[in-house]
Amino acid sequence: MGGESRGLIWGGVVGRDMSDLVTFGETMLRLSPPGQERLERASELEFRAAGAESNVAVNAGRLGLDTTWLSKLPDGALGRKVTATVEAQGATADVVWSDEGRQGTYYLEQASAPRPTNVIYDRADAAVTTATPDELPTERIEGGDAFYTSGITPALSDMLEGTTADLLALARAAGTTTVFDVNYRSKLWRPAEARPVLESLFPDVDVLVTALRDARNVLGLDGDAERVARDLAEEWGFETVVVTRGAAGALAWHAGDVIEQPAFEADTHDAVGTGDAFVGGFLARRLRGDGVPAALEYAAATAALKRTIPGDTALVTPEEVEAVLDRSGDDIAR
Amino acid sequence: MGGESRGLIWGGVVGRDMSDLVTFGETMLRLSPPGQERLERASELEFRAAGAESNVAVNAGRLGLDTTWLSKLPDGALGRKVTATVEAQGATADVVWSDEGRQGTYYLEQASAPRPTNVIYDRADAAVTTATPDELPTERIEGGDAFYTSGITPALSDMLEGTTADLLALARAAGTTTVFDVNYRSKLWRPAEARPVLESLFPDVDVLVTALRDARNVLGLDGDAERVARDLAEEWGFETVVVTRGAAGALAWHAGDVIEQPAFEADTHDAVGTGDAFVGGFLARRLRGDGVPAALEYAAATAALKRTIPGDTALVTPEEVEAVLDRSGDDIAR
Amino acid sequence: MGGESRGLIWGGVVGRDMSDLVTFGETMLRLSPPGQERLERASELEFRAAGAESNVAVNAGRLGLDTTWLSKLPDGALGRKVTATVEAQGATADVVWSDEGRQGTYYLEQASAPRPTNVIYDRADAAVTTATPDELPTERIEGGDAFYTSGITPALSDMLEGTTADLLALARAAGTTTVFDVNYRSKLWRPAEARPVLESLFPDVDVLVTALRDARNVLGLDGDAERVARDLAEEWGFETVVVTRGAAGALAWHAGDVIEQPAFEADTHDAVGTGDAFVGGFLARRLRGDGVPAALEYAAATAALKRTIPGDTALVTPEEVEAVLDRSGDDIAR
Amino acid sequence: MGGESRGLIWGGVVGRDMSDLVTFGETMLRLSPPGQERLERASELEFRAAGAESNVAVNAGRLGLDTTWLSKLPDGALGRKVTATVEAQGATADVVWSDEGRQGTYYLEQASAPRPTNVIYDRADAAVTTATPDELPTERIEGGDAFYTSGITPALSDMLEGTTADLLALARAAGTTTVFDVNYRSKLWRPAEARPVLESLFPDVDVLVTALRDARNVLGLDGDAERVARDLAEEWGFETVVVTRGAAGALAWHAGDVIEQPAFEADTHDAVGTGDAFVGGFLARRLRGDGVPAALEYAAATAALKRTIPGDTALVTPEEVEAVLDRSGDDIAR
Amino acid sequence: MGGESRGLIWGGVVGRDMSDLVTFGETMLRLSPPGQERLERASELEFRAAGAESNVAVNAGRLGLDTTWLSKLPDGALGRKVTATVEAQGATADVVWSDEGRQGTYYLEQASAPRPTNVIYDRADAAVTTATPDELPTERIEGGDAFYTSGITPALSDMLEGTTADLLALARAAGTTTVFDVNYRSKLWRPAEARPVLESLFPDVDVLVTALRDARNVLGLDGDAERVARDLAEEWGFETVVVTRGAAGALAWHAGDVIEQPAFEADTHDAVGTGDAFVGGFLARRLRGDGVPAALEYAAATAALKRTIPGDTALVTPEEVEAVLDRSGDDIAR
Amino acid sequence: MGGESRGLIWGGVVGRDMSDLVTFGETMLRLSPPGQERLERASELEFRAAGAESNVAVNAGRLGLDTTWLSKLPDGALGRKVTATVEAQGATADVVWSDEGRQGTYYLEQASAPRPTNVIYDRADAAVTTATPDELPTERIEGGDAFYTSGITPALSDMLEGTTADLLALARAAGTTTVFDVNYRSKLWRPAEARPVLESLFPDVDVLVTALRDARNVLGLDGDAERVARDLAEEWGFETVVVTRGAAGALAWHAGDVIEQPAFEADTHDAVGTGDAFVGGFLARRLRGDGVPAALEYAAATAALKRTIPGDTALVTPEEVEAVLDRSGDDIAR
Repeated sequence: MGGESRGLIWGGVVGRDMSDLVTFGETMLRLSPPGQERLERASELEFRAAGAESNVAVNAGRLGLDTTWLSKLPDGALGRKVTATVEAQGATADVVWSDEGRQGTYYLEQASAPRPTNVIYDRADAAVTTATPDELPTERIEGGDAFYTSGITPALSDMLEGTTADLLALARAAGTTTVFDVNYRSKLWRPAEARPVLESLFPDVDVLVTALRDARNVLGLDGDAERVARDLAEEWGFETVVVTRGAAGALAWHAGDVIEQPAFEADTHDAVGTGDAFVGGFLARRLRGDGVPAALEYAAATAALKRTIPGDTALVTPEEVEAVLDRSGDDIAR
Repeated sequence: MGGESRGLIWGGVVGRDMSDLVTFGETMLRLSPPGQERLERASELEFRAAGAESNVAVNAGRLGLDTTWLSKLPDGALGRKVTATVEAQGATADVVWSDEGRQGTYYLEQASAPRPTNVIYDRADAAVTTATPDELPTERIEGGDAFYTSGITPALSDMLEGTTADLLALARAAGTTTVFDVNYRSKLWRPAEARPVLESLFPDVDVLVTALRDARNVLGLDGDAERVARDLAEEWGFETVVVTRGAAGALAWHAGDVIEQPAFEADTHDAVGTGDAFVGGFLARRLRGDGVPAALEYAAATAALKRTIPGDTALVTPEEVEAVLDRSGDDIAR
Repeated sequence: MGGESRGLIWGGVVGRDMSDLVTFGETMLRLSPPGQERLERASELEFRAAGAESNVAVNAGRLGLDTTWLSKLPDGALGRKVTATVEAQGATADVVWSDEGRQGTYYLEQASAPRPTNVIYDRADAAVTTATPDELPTERIEGGDAFYTSGITPALSDMLEGTTADLLALARAAGTTTVFDVNYRSKLWRPAEARPVLESLFPDVDVLVTALRDARNVLGLDGDAERVARDLAEEWGFETVVVTRGAAGALAWHAGDVIEQPAFEADTHDAVGTGDAFVGGFLARRLRGDGVPAALEYAAATAALKRTIPGDTALVTPEEVEAVLDRSGDDIAR
Repeated sequence: MGGESRGLIWGGVVGRDMSDLVTFGETMLRLSPPGQERLERASELEFRAAGAESNVAVNAGRLGLDTTWLSKLPDGALGRKVTATVEAQGATADVVWSDEGRQGTYYLEQASAPRPTNVIYDRADAAVTTATPDELPTERIEGGDAFYTSGITPALSDMLEGTTADLLALARAAGTTTVFDVNYRSKLWRPAEARPVLESLFPDVDVLVTALRDARNVLGLDGDAERVARDLAEEWGFETVVVTRGAAGALAWHAGDVIEQPAFEADTHDAVGTGDAFVGGFLARRLRGDGVPAALEYAAATAALKRTIPGDTALVTPEEVEAVLDRSGDDIAR
Repeated sequence: MGGESRGLIWGGVVGRDMSDLVTFGETMLRLSPPGQERLERASELEFRAAGAESNVAVNAGRLGLDTTWLSKLPDGALGRKVTATVEAQGATADVVWSDEGRQGTYYLEQASAPRPTNVIYDRADAAVTTATPDELPTERIEGGDAFYTSGITPALSDMLEGTTADLLALARAAGTTTVFDVNYRSKLWRPAEARPVLESLFPDVDVLVTALRDARNVLGLDGDAERVARDLAEEWGFETVVVTRGAAGALAWHAGDVIEQPAFEADTHDAVGTGDAFVGGFLARRLRGDGVPAALEYAAATAALKRTIPGDTALVTPEEVEAVLDRSGDDIAR
Repeated sequence: MGGESRGLIWGGVVGRDMSDLVTFGETMLRLSPPGQERLERASELEFRAAGAESNVAVNAGRLGLDTTWLSKLPDGALGRKVTATVEAQGATADVVWSDEGRQGTYYLEQASAPRPTNVIYDRADAAVTTATPDELPTERIEGGDAFYTSGITPALSDMLEGTTADLLALARAAGTTTVFDVNYRSKLWRPAEARPVLESLFPDVDVLVTALRDARNVLGLDGDAERVARDLAEEWGFETVVVTRGAAGALAWHAGDVIEQPAFEADTHDAVGTGDAFVGGFLARRLRGDGVPAALEYAAATAALKRTIPGDTALVTPEEVEAVLDRSGDDIAR
């Protein structure tokens, strides 16, 4: 039985006095050589902080929602770098400060074909891997309109697998719309490990987002995006399924309808975080009451803008997204 | 009554002992984040100085003319940054130092599609906005072969509207060829404000340069570039009208002839200042006596080179422009 | 008569549900060449944002208070740079977004003796200069424990002179402790202009902070710091007067007592903002209920740390201030 | 006659206890403005060290060989910059330290079309120009499997013309396979000067590498790559001739067979050193016993990767080259 | 019993065909904000690699010894950054490449008084923590003149405690002089934990180096440096004990004699690694046959130079150390 | 027969229509690692241009004179970097462009005690070494009030030794005051080589500047600064002799009088070019008619300011020099 019957809140018609969107997950420090230099030879690194769930909170927060990112961080300068980054960009960071556990980190080497952009994770034993529902401000989830996390979170530790399940269940119980992005990471787990864990979470998910590739490789589905979306919706009773296909655009199944959304062309400067920009844009409009087609188009425009911006987040304004939708615009605005 | 009847000086056949080209206008500080970073998040900014009229003086100065840029600047380190920049690049800066008025500034965010490169002007109340013919070294204009300014100048203040008119009239009276680039800036004024001001200046202009887009949106003309050029020439008696169309190349009307000049292909690194490079290249050859077709081709090559260079000016040599015209050249010269 | 009779709130004994400290004033963009390079020759600038009142909000916010900075900013990327900076550092920015007015800016050339560090203000017509009590969230001031602004604010415009007076009066009326730092800036006004304006504000001020130099040059007082503090307290009925003397330390008059506080030695890296660090440290402890002597010592330690940190704010933790007070500490903590 | 009859060592089947590959030539300091900035205006330069022969030693060294680069350098910090760079990247530097002679240098301006990337050599009187076989550790050449140098070396001085000839002869006499890349540099000598010198070396060369353009312009050959390769092999008795044609790929003649190898597509970030990457990849496989077709394919993949990496060397791993060959790979590996 | 009776090798009088000095320990990546910026606000980090034992290998290697650093690193770009750094600076890196374990990292905030320079270790579970004698090339230790490690190594893991003991015992058995620096790190273990472990290693140590502070706080000794040195020598039978006291200089006990060595004055730029520079300089001379007094003086000069150089190593030449000893030298050598 | 009898022009009382001061000498590119990094490890270099004679032209030009620097440079981007730098800073560059000869370069490693700042010259065969009076615009020297060169110039080549002599003689003959700074450089020649060359020039010198150290080591003089100055004046008939002693200040002998000038204290940031700042300041006032005592004081203030500024030149204004003389000034001017 899909989301419709649950009376999901889209557009905040029922008054709530808390965040529109709450997210939970790990945010790492991001260390990357300038330009296309190799790590091995770099003598300085760009220093940012990013993670799927704080990215989505930032992206949606900039586009009009009141958003809060929940996490657990090591007490100290590295953890403060993370919260300072999130708050500077427009979301609220509500974190548990821990005396134990590391600050997760990743190294990013940007490249161009045929050299792939390379990510080296150094995130084992991060403080967040021991986060439990008890220590997190779960009332924010219960009081929010929507709750978002991704498949990265349960992949990080056994503890987080349980915490993710608990938070989704708790949100569901409180009437908060649950949004989940499969976000498979091959450097964290194998498809055979991931599939049962992800599927165990699906019953508490209202809106599922997945790359077509992940649906095939990890969830074992066949066929094109429409086939995949229908199969997922039918099997798990999602209210909405969004399937992304990179340059080939996205497709959504929603309450029986299928909506196609092509990607906007973009001259890519930094591709990392494109998926989170898509989700942030989608939720920004959906939680303000737009229908799925309008939200998808907004999502695609946000994702295209993201690709022009260094770092993992879509550091944009609603006006800039609108301008992409309007295709108005010279090359130089002056 | 076109320029022909005025016996315009092209090629310096009549001996003069002063600059070949004199320009007048505002030059601003240019503050831009590195790469495609957003201003909001940048922690350092590239610091340059640029303005249409000093750009043209620099560009033409590098390509063989003796050029002087006139302006009014606030006395102090910021004003000195401007003159140091202009003089380092090959033009003479002859400025009035003022105790009043600001140093105009602009912030530039470079971007790639679908995000437009964005300009934020912070140029209100610049010292130059109070410049009068009385305080400027107008003898340089009277003694020069040509005088150049653009539609940006009269847009900056009422005072400058009058000063621009006076300088053009004074140049005309002295037999100095007058060159004017419409250079419409939507962040400075609206088309309905701009048109009457610009048209009031046209009677004293010998050579008009305009983007096709500006001719349509601001000057209210219809038709293709040729139509626009003819209409302008017929209505205002210009000796030459140059209509630029970006990647579609330029077209000139000159003494009844129409000359088409395609753009040279360029892998664009920094598009700002392309128009000024075109004008600088055009005048460099025209004032050395070349005909309009040769000057247009040189202008197009200079503009293509500009697009490969950071900053607003075409920091090139005549040999480099010739190499583009000769299409000689490996990818790496060694 | 003095503050004692007003039942000022020190330590938050009376429960309030809003910020401990609210500040109001201008925050500018800060553009400075790297190292000791001169502006005239710099090709890149460090890009920060700072202002006395947001500095105090940040400094006190990091040291344990819940602080909010109020202001008015131009809507756009430059204004967002300011709020992002303030929020990243630990204070709340509650600003009026304006379609009119500039973003104030200052250029800073760091130097060493005998060359003075030089500040070039470019802050005329900033959006904040038109801020009125009507448009500001004055309920935050009324609901706060303390309200802080400085003598820079009324110097910026006639409008702000009135707004400053109104906000102090409104705070006073609401029982919010008012704190005012003379902060005389010779590039904004002359002593003879400043004195009557400042003195017109003093009746609504509970805690006055002033450099000894300003007390002499601007307020026309004679004698040593103790004499100055007593005279000020007696004339205006301040609850507390703090007189700062740079390396010679600070002195406070409080309810008839005089407290001396020497400065902690510091190897100065960036002196800008030292006074704001002192005030932030002082208020952080005073509003948590410490007495004036303890608050002064904490203030002096915070100020010493500030001098080691680039930028205008004391980006420190309470633990770091405590370590200075404990004089514990190797040169390298590892 | 060809190498076959000489029993060349490919794959190290005969046990040797020294380097697989020894190279000899000049390595210069490389000074380049960031991005596409012009030298004339740059205020900082990237500082690297590179040269064809150390590039080949590094490239092959990273891909599995034990390689040593021989040269002569001025004793001091500049020479140490060179050896530190070579050794950090994975080759051994065995150099003669000299009290005479300069450190060769080149300035590199990266550009995009229509502006060519420009190289300014400042390498006259480098210490290496006086290197003689007597002072070099020639036993390394005699004990190696292969010896490589390029046409740059004899172009640098009369002394080096003789030394190059001597080293090739000495290698040949010791049974070390000799590899020579024509590497014509128009800024060092003219075709008419180069041809007789190069041809005088050919009798001691086993494997010749040449750009098709150099074969035509310098060696005076006609026809397509196959024709050129055959003519060279027939005239000089090379075991193998490799003809490179940039984006059009490479072609080899080997023992009567002709092998075509297309180029892998690459989004070029820094093209300098592509040829050396090709040679390094070729020798890495060839000296490990692979046939010419496999070595050519490996060479082409290495060259494509090089184009994505700043600096002159292919700072890659064997796994990365394999991944290009497998065409496996997302755009982002995470 | 002391070293004398063991016939220790000083000066390499007995011919050996391997490294003069072998070291073993962890080398970390070093991430530090530019200047005195705080980590929390930094947007870029300097990226180096350093560790006590590779520092000593580099420092002694530059000053004339043939040195090798042994360790275990994670296979990949981060590990290669470490070996590239060590080899570029003049030591040989002979490491075990591991598929398990992290690359240890530390963050360094440089500061000036009263703010301490701060180190944040992120080194748990580094690959090196599982290193065993079996997998290390222990023949290098057995074939070397001296073996060096420090008290950091056994602090890193139980496994490394055993490995350290085994390597010292193995060196001792092979007649290799053993050198051990107490190098207590309060962020790794407490004094009560450290003391028994360190003391368990002392029977196999020939030369002990310790800060006076560590001798008191960790080893529980009383008195001045001479007292401490004598007590240590008597209790454990060390051949040599070197006690360092920062700016107060060093003192050595050797075979019954006490040698005082004052510190050379230095204007400190980066203090990290001063102790390793001292040890490197000491061993460079001692292993070349100098007596303890000459080696101590050389050590002190090397340490003073180190303080002027960014990064953890003394990137100097023997000539530069000699110049300090000669006190020859202008401020500018030109 | 001192200068008095020659009726030297001080203060330009006799009208001239050309530059006040003309200088001749080599200007090099200056390449220096950031901060105190070592060249061997630097990955980027600051890129400036500087030389004693252009430094003096710039310094005096900024302080009120009309100055021209003469030289010979290689045609191309490196030579243009030099002229752009000189002209940006406020002097005129009138150079002969050459197709032969290199661009002189020097590498600068800034350091702190006990490590000396180190200069590595790479200036052999610079284009300027072949400069002859015939190709230089000597009419500028003849038309100027004063001509300056230094002992570096004749040290560069035999040709330049002759050219220096010719230019001094030609200036003397034209009634142009000649100023010569001994400026001994031990990396260019030995004292025994320098002395006869320098002494051969002295008969045509009016004003001699020398470091006390050079007077002793190179010119073979004994005694204190006064003794040295008197001896030089008596032997060679100089109008003025200025002896500099670094932190100990300067002393001048002029027409029989001795004037002492202490140094102003300075917190040194970059000491290179201090001597040229002294000369520039001295000539700026002397050529405007000030007496020797006033000019010496101005020189000392200019030199003190120079020490706070990166690069070789005193990038200051007359107002800044006046402020040092007035000792007015806070640490921060705002």
